[in-house]
Amino acid sequence: MINELIAKIKKTGAPIVVGLDPTLKLIPKHLLEKAYKECGENPEGVARAIVEYNKGIVDAVADLVPAVKPQIAMYEQFGIPGLIAYQKTIRYCKEKGLVVIGDIKRGDIGSTSEAYAVGHLGKVTIGGVEYRGFEEDFATVNPYLGSDGVKPFIEVCRQEKRGIFVLVKTSNPSSGEFQDQKIDGRSLYELVGEKVAAWGEDLKGEEYSYVGAVVGATYPEEGRILRKLMPRTYILVPGYGAQGGKGADLVHFFNDDGLGAIINSSRGIIAAYQQEKYAAYGEENYADAARQAVLDMKTDIKDALDVAGKHVRM
Amino acid sequence: MINELIAKIKKTGAPIVVGLDPTLKLIPKHLLEKAYKECGENPEGVARAIVEYNKGIVDAVADLVPAVKPQIAMYEQFGIPGLIAYQKTIRYCKEKGLVVIGDIKRGDIGSTSEAYAVGHLGKVTIGGVEYRGFEEDFATVNPYLGSDGVKPFIEVCRQEKRGIFVLVKTSNPSSGEFQDQKIDGRSLYELVGEKVAAWGEDLKGEEYSYVGAVVGATYPEEGRILRKLMPRTYILVPGYGAQGGKGADLVHFFNDDGLGAIINSSRGIIAAYQQEKYAAYGEENYADAARQAVLDMKTDIKDALDVAGKHVRM
Repeated sequence: MINELIAKIKKTGAPIVVGLDPTLKLIPKHLLEKAYKECGENPEGVARAIVEYNKGIVDAVADLVPAVKPQIAMYEQFGIPGLIAYQKTIRYCKEKGLVVIGDIKRGDIGSTSEAYAVGHLGKVTIGGVEYRGFEEDFATVNPYLGSDGVKPFIEVCRQEKRGIFVLVKTSNPSSGEFQDQKIDGRSLYELVGEKVAAWGEDLKGEEYSYVGAVVGATYPEEGRILRKLMPRTYILVPGYGAQGGKGADLVHFFNDDGLGAIINSSRGIIAAYQQEKYAAYGEENYADAARQAVLDMKTDIKDALDVAGKHVRM
Repeated sequence: MINELIAKIKKTGAPIVVGLDPTLKLIPKHLLEKAYKECGENPEGVARAIVEYNKGIVDAVADLVPAVKPQIAMYEQFGIPGLIAYQKTIRYCKEKGLVVIGDIKRGDIGSTSEAYAVGHLGKVTIGGVEYRGFEEDFATVNPYLGSDGVKPFIEVCRQEKRGIFVLVKTSNPSSGEFQDQKIDGRSLYELVGEKVAAWGEDLKGEEYSYVGAVVGATYPEEGRILRKLMPRTYILVPGYGAQGGKGADLVHFFNDDGLGAIINSSRGIIAAYQQEKYAAYGEENYADAARQAVLDMKTDIKDALDVAGKHVRM
């Protein structure tokens, strides 16, 4: 799947993943009203609106980007109907040819991590028949529990040719509380990064490993350090746009081959219509605003990579 | 809710939580066959069997223990039907008066952590009506992302009078890879433990904080250190039984008031019928075997606390 992701990045020229993180405040009113009329003003109605909202965005950007990243928490907050919307969203995105990164940040130990891996990236077998739960292509994983927590995911990735992105240095202001702590002069995130590279040694695609990392756009200097520590690790970079990361900050996350990083933007794209810059589109045309926001983001990243001389070989 | 949990621990005399972690290998055959006949041999059938299996155990132990801890991964692996079984299990346990600790190990940042907190411990408001997703009383939380990840949970706990248990030192063999790393001579888990105590300062029940910690039974020495660092933090202790923890190892997790810890056992109770010791019950009487395993565990812990002179004041 990492090979497929890279092929799509090369084809679109956009190392961009669109974060499908719907909240009530972001969904356009006309979609909510229609869904409430059909399903009631309740979690089922919200779930319907979420799926329609996502479909609009996916239809508008599917030819421009390689991947989407639904954040499961935004669905899980609405209970079972929300999780059904998560599942429907994934299916729709895959029908449209997009790679789906489930931002689930799961992590446990042994058979419990295996259960998460199976539910999201693999399959259960019941009476000789295989069933898939959520069917993401990639999932994000929390490393706090160590190898026991991550390796069951890697085993499922090996069987299924899917992948993971392990949290290394997260984009939030307090990420340093633990991640920046110094151990023999080096930060915890460096140790975690080294482990991610080692876990990935064992499961390589053509150019990069199936085991990726999450490093926030808000920490370009840490991105530079980690880029060197994990040369064959794909880096999923959140924090662009709404969280403050800029195009010029992003170049450090890429290798000289112009690859190695994929930048996420969520609100900056899916709720572009709420920004002054795209207000002229109007709420009803939220999907067109999202498309323009993707095009602008693509240019921002391309310009920064051009300045840095990091070009993708086709 | 921490006050209610402690009241129930005092009433039952059992600082025990039963881990409801069903897997296909643990569910008795007669329950699977019946469920498959009713719902088909598919995820819906498994989900039905899980709920019936759990109900049998809950009915057998509800008068003996204060709490249960369903591990959501074991349900999530079966997709939506599995998560519906998780929800039904929680509702049934609460009807029977048990405190429910959702072992969800979630953790993200800002509004995303808030969404998890809302979905599991709180409520969403749609059209002025409140809806609850999964309705656990407590949830386990992963601290790797720092305060930004934990505080949204604490805010929801404050509003809802519910609680969390933050992972500090986990029970698995590789937990030391990151958690034991030395920072200025002290382990990362100590730093995390201090943070947990500080987060909890702000949200105290009568005797203990609403912000608890997870520390594995397999690390009694670390338990002793953390007990002192976090004097008013309730410790959820996994790893007893199947993972190797013994009664005598557990005393370090308790305060001199005989409180401060609650010990989880999952397979050791719910699949007691598969152990030689309880084999005479037979598979059909798995619930009776579970009841006896709880009684034996209660004695094991009581004997150890008696030797240590740690007694609960009623």
